[in-house]
Amino acid sequence: MQYPLTPIRFLDRAAGLYGHKEGIVSGEKRFTFAEFAERARRLASVLPLAGLRPGDRVAYLSFNTHQLLEGYYGVIQAQGIIMPLNVRLSPPELIAILNHSEARLLLYENDFTPLVQALRGACPSICAALPLDAGYEELLAQGKPEAADIAACDENAIAELFYTSGSTGTPKGVMLSHRTLYLHGLSVAATFNYDDRQVELHTIPLFHANGWGRPHSPMMMGIRQVMVRRFEPGAVLRLIQEEKATCMSLVPTMAGALLASPDLNRYDCSSLEQIHLGGAAASPELVERMEAAFRCRVMGGYGLTETSPVITSARDKSTVQYAGDAERRERRAMAGWPIPGVDVRVVDASLQDVPRDMRTIGEVVVRGDHVMDGYFKDPEATAAAMTGAWLRTGDMAVWDRENYVHIVDRRKDIIISGGENISSLEVEKAIFAHPAVLECAVVGAPDPKWGEAPVAFVVAKPGERLSETELLDFLRERLAAFKLPRAIEFSEAPLPKTGTGKIMKRALREKFWAGRERRVQG
Amino acid sequence: MQYPLTPIRFLDRAAGLYGHKEGIVSGEKRFTFAEFAERARRLASVLPLAGLRPGDRVAYLSFNTHQLLEGYYGVIQAQGIIMPLNVRLSPPELIAILNHSEARLLLYENDFTPLVQALRGACPSICAALPLDAGYEELLAQGKPEAADIAACDENAIAELFYTSGSTGTPKGVMLSHRTLYLHGLSVAATFNYDDRQVELHTIPLFHANGWGRPHSPMMMGIRQVMVRRFEPGAVLRLIQEEKATCMSLVPTMAGALLASPDLNRYDCSSLEQIHLGGAAASPELVERMEAAFRCRVMGGYGLTETSPVITSARDKSTVQYAGDAERRERRAMAGWPIPGVDVRVVDASLQDVPRDMRTIGEVVVRGDHVMDGYFKDPEATAAAMTGAWLRTGDMAVWDRENYVHIVDRRKDIIISGGENISSLEVEKAIFAHPAVLECAVVGAPDPKWGEAPVAFVVAKPGERLSETELLDFLRERLAAFKLPRAIEFSEAPLPKTGTGKIMKRALREKFWAGRERRVQG
Repeated sequence: MQYPLTPIRFLDRAAGLYGHKEGIVSGEKRFTFAEFAERARRLASVLPLAGLRPGDRVAYLSFNTHQLLEGYYGVIQAQGIIMPLNVRLSPPELIAILNHSEARLLLYENDFTPLVQALRGACPSICAALPLDAGYEELLAQGKPEAADIAACDENAIAELFYTSGSTGTPKGVMLSHRTLYLHGLSVAATFNYDDRQVELHTIPLFHANGWGRPHSPMMMGIRQVMVRRFEPGAVLRLIQEEKATCMSLVPTMAGALLASPDLNRYDCSSLEQIHLGGAAASPELVERMEAAFRCRVMGGYGLTETSPVITSARDKSTVQYAGDAERRERRAMAGWPIPGVDVRVVDASLQDVPRDMRTIGEVVVRGDHVMDGYFKDPEATAAAMTGAWLRTGDMAVWDRENYVHIVDRRKDIIISGGENISSLEVEKAIFAHPAVLECAVVGAPDPKWGEAPVAFVVAKPGERLSETELLDFLRERLAAFKLPRAIEFSEAPLPKTGTGKIMKRALREKFWAGRERRVQG
Repeated sequence: MQYPLTPIRFLDRAAGLYGHKEGIVSGEKRFTFAEFAERARRLASVLPLAGLRPGDRVAYLSFNTHQLLEGYYGVIQAQGIIMPLNVRLSPPELIAILNHSEARLLLYENDFTPLVQALRGACPSICAALPLDAGYEELLAQGKPEAADIAACDENAIAELFYTSGSTGTPKGVMLSHRTLYLHGLSVAATFNYDDRQVELHTIPLFHANGWGRPHSPMMMGIRQVMVRRFEPGAVLRLIQEEKATCMSLVPTMAGALLASPDLNRYDCSSLEQIHLGGAAASPELVERMEAAFRCRVMGGYGLTETSPVITSARDKSTVQYAGDAERRERRAMAGWPIPGVDVRVVDASLQDVPRDMRTIGEVVVRGDHVMDGYFKDPEATAAAMTGAWLRTGDMAVWDRENYVHIVDRRKDIIISGGENISSLEVEKAIFAHPAVLECAVVGAPDPKWGEAPVAFVVAKPGERLSETELLDFLRERLAAFKLPRAIEFSEAPLPKTGTGKIMKRALREKFWAGRERRVQG
């Protein structure tokens, strides 16, 4: 029979089957699943008193805390739409999102009190701003701990709204329905051999696509979850030891920070069983260093805000034999192959498969249960992103007969030089392989002979010295001649980054392309 | 977005991700997933030529073969409803089912040719009977190997129709939709840590509820599947060795047969990782013997035709610590705790939870994604089975705070003696614990003093002798006095059984109750 699909059922399941188990750890606080569910349900019952009407957007300004996680379930049980904001965005960016979404309520951590005052004046839709610190417990105390009436839920209603970081263009609001989130949570659980012995560390901000998608599967499976309020390498390593964490997700820069931490060997991390690298492309070198440091399964994965997010992971596949450790790590660093619930292909402009030769570049497209329910109030952008049931990701990749997908670039970052496609990512990886490199970015610059040519921006590690000649000699052993950067600019200062920590290639590119029409592939 | 949920996607996924992997083994034949999918798709394309219209029922008379499995996907891709018949039913029972379902096509193995001739005369709805042996390959050769247009599928359409064995009353046709089967397949995959290295032995007939639900999860996960045409202990043990099987499901009588087989130690069964015991209640003794024989994880489980079928399993739970091996085996022999996708409770007549004390008996009710879409052409029976979203299973159980469910009896088999509920199953288990017992059944007989009293029917193992006094002495150590059988009838002949091998307690009970009104609990 049709019983509504909603992540609220994950909360109910955790409370019902694991009521007395310690479920959520957040700073000094520890809640059983029953206590946590009661809090989320109380929140659901008081939000309407604060002005929430069904379908209203509820914005959060919060790092990873139990309060934010309570919102994940409380807001949607109240028939609201939860909308965690990226706290690293600038006030104008936040104002644009709040106004576009017409958010009705704003819940915020103490840290953001001055910011909230600035936002309220500019965002007339907000009828109440509720602090998550002072007064929050009193608010919950007024509520009733009643479970949701699942049978009355509309599985196609929007549950989460998440504005993409927008490294280019205007942020778009990705809508995810109750059904989409339920199916994603179940597919992820079926993929990673989750069981209730595990302990998940929420290392990536829950307001970021990659963190966003994490809590639902552990909640369904009764897995203890430890909130990492802000990522600090020493604190994360300490939490792994203290909480006996078995799994966590990291973006590559976080992984690099853990490896570079002076605390790396200070804590016992032997409880770790799996580490997921996502959010940006990993490298075999990073996988190797993480395996050596943590002695557990380390694997890449791939997804988008628009896909809830996970669509592929680089877990082992029974039909793929590794010739050795090098090949294994190469596979593990890829985006990987589709998880249940989605079809993932690499196609040309007419949506035909490109050859499965790990050489021919095409665009990644995805279809299935995890695909978003559209961009909020933006049918044009939605239509532009979809071709039939296929979502065009804008990411460029190669693939093979095993359906392993290897992302080579964002479509817009492909450098076309003398008719050859150069993946700026590939060049960046080669540069990163040099032990003295801390940061780097490669962009296409106009070239009188080849149309475009790659140019690199490099920041050396503190105390390291690196010359252009030295680095080019290093790269020549790793890259075809046509892929070598035409110029390398060394910088002392960090490269410019977006709110989610991505390097702003657009800004770097601008100095070369100002006044020109950008050539874009595809 | 809403992408239709259908098990056809499991076939497509296997073909897409594991095309060149050996997927299906059936007797002498071996098919890659691509070959298997092509066959199922060809079947889908030719069935309409044989007269199939959307929504029509397609009956199968077949043991476990690749042809039957092809029907699981080919029939539903052709928008038909697959209806595997229990080949052990009598002709009148089969005729009743075929006529009630108004089956349009009948596909059959060679063995059943004379039976099919008899059925056709009595079942006017059947427009064509197609053999699965001679002519079947030629039929497929006429077809086209085109994949289904998933986007055009109706996830709420019925995909499978399965008539319950009907040990009492009239058989009812359980309807399972594409959506229900998809969600069940995904939940099962999320429960049992399936991965694509595994090899599944299809030991239980696919026309039986417990076998019925097995293929979809392995298909989705690209797991190699070995069809066991008919269960023969020696052949099963040989297949485990030859195919390196890692998992299989058994009803307790099959498990007993494997343990009693002279071939038990002849084959290497070390590849086995998990054995599921279902279809009837297991005992700690059986779990112990199976663990000793196969040295792998052995666990009970529970489900119904009406629930696709799995709703609980006795896998480990992080919040349950075993005091020792005896307690572990006791837990493992239970129905267990809910898998994702369903809520399972034990309730009184007014649907209130009975105390979670492992003593108070109530009825098992279930709600969620795996619950059937009703009984075919029988809205009264459907309404009688459901209370709101809750399906009443008719099975009586006790439970505890961990939501472990322990089935104590079919509701109708509870014996009420002097106001005490006696589980006939419990008494049977105690009798089975005696090493000389081959078969037994306990029913309630009228008793002038207590209302009812348990009476036992026992068949001793060949060559074993057993007296009533001896057995009662044995039982006195294991059962409260009021639960002891008032009489024990020894029999040389096997006890009467239904088409699915269940002992026909109704027939045994009849001799005591003839002419009386049966007292029934609840």
